[in-house]
Amino acid sequence: MAFESKIRTIEWVGNVSRMVDQTKVPYEYVTVDIKTGDEMYDAIKTMIVRGAPAIGVSAAHGVVLYAQELAKQNLSRDEFISKLIEKSEYLKTSRPTAVNLMWGVNKQIELIKNSQSDISGIIEELKQNGIKMENDDISINKRIGDNGAEVVPKGATILTHCNAGALATVGYGTALGVVRSAYAKDNTIQVFSDETRPRQQGSRITTFELKMDGIPVTMITDGMCSYFMKKGMIDMVVVGADRIAANGDTANKIGTYTVAIAAKYHNIPFYIAAPLSTIDTSIKSGDEIPIEERSHDEVTTINGKLVCAEGVNVINPGFDVTPHELISGIITEVGILRPDYNKSIADAFKTSAMC
Amino acid sequence: MAFESKIRTIEWVGNVSRMVDQTKVPYEYVTVDIKTGDEMYDAIKTMIVRGAPAIGVSAAHGVVLYAQELAKQNLSRDEFISKLIEKSEYLKTSRPTAVNLMWGVNKQIELIKNSQSDISGIIEELKQNGIKMENDDISINKRIGDNGAEVVPKGATILTHCNAGALATVGYGTALGVVRSAYAKDNTIQVFSDETRPRQQGSRITTFELKMDGIPVTMITDGMCSYFMKKGMIDMVVVGADRIAANGDTANKIGTYTVAIAAKYHNIPFYIAAPLSTIDTSIKSGDEIPIEERSHDEVTTINGKLVCAEGVNVINPGFDVTPHELISGIITEVGILRPDYNKSIADAFKTSAMC
Repeated sequence: MAFESKIRTIEWVGNVSRMVDQTKVPYEYVTVDIKTGDEMYDAIKTMIVRGAPAIGVSAAHGVVLYAQELAKQNLSRDEFISKLIEKSEYLKTSRPTAVNLMWGVNKQIELIKNSQSDISGIIEELKQNGIKMENDDISINKRIGDNGAEVVPKGATILTHCNAGALATVGYGTALGVVRSAYAKDNTIQVFSDETRPRQQGSRITTFELKMDGIPVTMITDGMCSYFMKKGMIDMVVVGADRIAANGDTANKIGTYTVAIAAKYHNIPFYIAAPLSTIDTSIKSGDEIPIEERSHDEVTTINGKLVCAEGVNVINPGFDVTPHELISGIITEVGILRPDYNKSIADAFKTSAMC
Repeated sequence: MAFESKIRTIEWVGNVSRMVDQTKVPYEYVTVDIKTGDEMYDAIKTMIVRGAPAIGVSAAHGVVLYAQELAKQNLSRDEFISKLIEKSEYLKTSRPTAVNLMWGVNKQIELIKNSQSDISGIIEELKQNGIKMENDDISINKRIGDNGAEVVPKGATILTHCNAGALATVGYGTALGVVRSAYAKDNTIQVFSDETRPRQQGSRITTFELKMDGIPVTMITDGMCSYFMKKGMIDMVVVGADRIAANGDTANKIGTYTVAIAAKYHNIPFYIAAPLSTIDTSIKSGDEIPIEERSHDEVTTINGKLVCAEGVNVINPGFDVTPHELISGIITEVGILRPDYNKSIADAFKTSAMC
């Protein structure tokens, strides 16, 4: 089960956060160095980096970048901490839905508040914490992948939506982590990737990263899923998550809910793959998850060209919520959680706290 | 209920078939003159004209164009008829799914076989028959529209998929004919239009023609339908059809089946709007409808630019079949057919034969 991906999405290098610029994939595969906290804010907002776990680690890096800048301002330690926390809180507002953003920032704020070091010591600790979060992300994803691989049938075709892959995380991936671990055991499996309009993360990013790692992938448009399900060509669905409520309701990229309904109609297992850091036990159900409304240009234009009548009305929710009753299991680093999710999620956090 | 659309998709003018070039919509709204039978074959195949009823009338025009060409070849009447029928049969192979194509050609072949006239007389009769089919199409659509308007709730938001509008017919439309008739009675209704990947007939054509006729329209991507259904923002779904089997199973643009499943899950009425000429009583169920597999470029490129990794595998079925159990009613020119469709469809043809 030792699949080695060629992809490394984010890495702290010297004093900068180096990340693959995902707005350029699949046309170019290049990295960009994010050098300031505000640059990180913009990188998250404009989706140079995207995917809940990748956003979490990026946000942790962003706090380090702000710390490095504030260190140049001759502030007292107290002023430094107070301004850094303020900047960190601001970073959380770059996108509203993915809870890993808040999680990544909060991990750093906790460190800042508890540190006994001087300013340069705090910066070093934040940096090391960011690097640890990178490494943890990869090892957590591998555990998610291995846990999920257990329920992938031999020779399965796995449908996925959006990109919950190496490029949505530091490396390896959550939903595509399951694919990688399953492929390492059985190279007859394959992936069907929804295009995932409007931003086309499925066609642009998922097809790209699976081709790069040599895993067979077929691209379909979002409306086609039911056609292939009815023909018996899809064995299971695995997608990522941006936020999971205490009852298992899961926010993920817009269109996921439609796929989940289609899977239910055809009696096909529908799994979420996500680290525990994506579960927000502070909210009871999906109704409380804020849904980001994104720019209308994402819907009306593709590669800068209009695809509809000029001036047409648009609504562009970035995410939808799949209710827990449509979810067969939530694949995490501590195992596959099953209904009743209120119980299995609470238990998972207890297990995790004991590790 | 007298809505006047600004759109005329096809019209016989002199010796040519003049049609809106739909590959250029929404960037340009221009007509092209189709002057030969082979040009008509290509126009249908490359989707300069598309939409089942529009294809039916175009095919009838195509037979006239072939007849005009053959008339220049100094053939005997028997040779002329034999070659014309051969060319007409060839025209049927331009696209496999829309049964109106076969219906339109067969209407002309029937005329050819029954005519007592000489060659120029046959051509004149074919021409008049083509023009009659144009006029019939518009009046049938208006009857479909008026019948459908009866079941549109006040202030309704109607979701549609692909384009079953004026531009899918000679004018007025089937699904959008229902919208036009409903709007004439109640100008607080509005339309949500699925983008309809891969060819984007929803975003390119439906938004364009509704804007042109001043009917409020919001464009959404294909995966979003369930999100808006769950929010209670969709009151009904109305789509067109490319072929309806004797049991009510309906082939329509790929993605329709997914919308139908989502509508069922949310208890939202799902209607087909189509003329009786779209019903193929020679086939018992949707399993017998041939599904066209179209070019992979339609999926992998938009406006000529690649939207996925190079060399990625693709499957591109042009249509899917919505099983009758997901269909609330089939809106036709003789009324709304309800389950059991085997019975209601058979009855409709009896009624129609008596008219």
